[in-house]
Amino acid sequence: MKEADIIQQVKQHFPSHIGDDAACFSYSEREHYVISKDLLVENVHFRLRYQTLESLAHKALHVNLSDLAAMGATPCYVLLGLSIPQHLQAISVFLDAFAAACKAANITLIGGDTTRSETDLFISITVIGKATSIKSRATARVDDQICVVGNLGYAHVGLMSLEQDRPGFEPFKQAFLNPQARLDIGLWLAEQQTVHSMMDLSDGLSTDLTRLCEASGLGAHVALEQLPISPAFEQACSALALDPTKTALTGGEDYALLCTVDPTDYPRLAEACLQSFKQPLSRVGSMTQKKDICFTSQGKNKILDLRPFSHFGE
Amino acid sequence: MKEADIIQQVKQHFPSHIGDDAACFSYSEREHYVISKDLLVENVHFRLRYQTLESLAHKALHVNLSDLAAMGATPCYVLLGLSIPQHLQAISVFLDAFAAACKAANITLIGGDTTRSETDLFISITVIGKATSIKSRATARVDDQICVVGNLGYAHVGLMSLEQDRPGFEPFKQAFLNPQARLDIGLWLAEQQTVHSMMDLSDGLSTDLTRLCEASGLGAHVALEQLPISPAFEQACSALALDPTKTALTGGEDYALLCTVDPTDYPRLAEACLQSFKQPLSRVGSMTQKKDICFTSQGKNKILDLRPFSHFGE
Repeated sequence: MKEADIIQQVKQHFPSHIGDDAACFSYSEREHYVISKDLLVENVHFRLRYQTLESLAHKALHVNLSDLAAMGATPCYVLLGLSIPQHLQAISVFLDAFAAACKAANITLIGGDTTRSETDLFISITVIGKATSIKSRATARVDDQICVVGNLGYAHVGLMSLEQDRPGFEPFKQAFLNPQARLDIGLWLAEQQTVHSMMDLSDGLSTDLTRLCEASGLGAHVALEQLPISPAFEQACSALALDPTKTALTGGEDYALLCTVDPTDYPRLAEACLQSFKQPLSRVGSMTQKKDICFTSQGKNKILDLRPFSHFGE
Repeated sequence: MKEADIIQQVKQHFPSHIGDDAACFSYSEREHYVISKDLLVENVHFRLRYQTLESLAHKALHVNLSDLAAMGATPCYVLLGLSIPQHLQAISVFLDAFAAACKAANITLIGGDTTRSETDLFISITVIGKATSIKSRATARVDDQICVVGNLGYAHVGLMSLEQDRPGFEPFKQAFLNPQARLDIGLWLAEQQTVHSMMDLSDGLSTDLTRLCEASGLGAHVALEQLPISPAFEQACSALALDPTKTALTGGEDYALLCTVDPTDYPRLAEACLQSFKQPLSRVGSMTQKKDICFTSQGKNKILDLRPFSHFGE
């Protein structure tokens, strides 16, 4: 059974309560708790052959913090679940790094559970944040500009170079091994009234944009020439025999932010984002009434054969 | 590395925030959210050879609800994390049963994560409840009566009979396979001012009472002849060549409640508990200033060689 099938089954059983990056529950009229839970599984999401326990601890936290960033929430509390195989003796290395990552993100560990595992290392983290203005993925509007903050496909290039034991590719390897949740930009975007929807990019733009479209009951037009593809990225893709456009569209684990923005306010937002965070707010397309995702290159329709992201194949 | 060593390491890294069955964060002056996370790992906590996916779903929820019960909290929300091995095709059976268990406990699924697993089935559940009066394990007082609600050792007898493929032993097998969180009694006990501390019994009375003593900075005296040991339990232990007293003290997964009670109010509480819930509030000993746990039998000290509970051996 594939992950998409499992999620579909969960949605059928709990129709009204699954959807956004994180779930919300209110504690006052204007304030909400935002909660998210992500699992990291050995040999499904990471390999200890090239991922140190230090970077794994940092990544495990930031994968979860990215869900809070996408909701515009400020991190408060974290619960850590670990199932540890017998062969792993040095778990204190993981705990040291996790404690440091929590301190840096100003989040407090309040509980969790630790057990043995007979086989692989399993990490299950729950994070709780607070938010006043929450951005859902279900509230995009027709003609919204589809925008991305962060690099696309970098983590996938890093993963491929790690899997193939290739030297070099450092910025890409770091993108995969040490992602950084974009909490400050997420918080700022959530405060902007003209940002109509937001989510994080964990499974690749094409998969995650499909989810945003489905949640909002809309479709999208993506102009391939507008994808933020740098010369360094093109070169790295070429060295690994990857198609840069497809890799930017389908590579997972970038933990970039995807948002849709009122077209009239896009110039102001892009300028402010660059000024405040030194980050471009890259416009890659627009939301459409027609409920499909259409790709164009220089104005001409393009049909792409895109396979959903999976770390090591399903 | 043993689980106790891992927990010790976690405590060293996060000294002030680990301890009770569940963690708390406030949302108003008198009201608190209570959150708990428990992992269930295939071949560490359960075997699919004799545990159906239906009963596993029920148990996974109730193991977590028991932590809320021990804090005197009412269940509100749950997040479900599943890492599913390829050989498990019938996950909808699990989801059906989980949905039914949530409905019965009046708890709403608001999120989670599902991934593949290359090996075993991992279940990670986070539950959130609300409470006004919270009972900690760290607030027991000297001379408090140590009380238990529920059977001791039943789940361990069930587990042993399942492991050995023994027919019969039904009430004991059900205690292991289908535990029921004692939410109503937990809520009621939490409202009683003369109940000074509470926790649930997941790892056996001797281990869990040691935790309560350490958290409260006290010791305990346990009168072995006061342990609630029924003739049926004695007979089942005898058939499995288990010592009834040791099994009652060390058997895990009972999800009974352990609390300490002001001695002057014990008779009233015991009577009320029996009246309202048809459950005895069994008094098994008292809290002491001296920081060790002392067992007596008919007034004479007994030295017991007790091994901490582990499902299938560590």
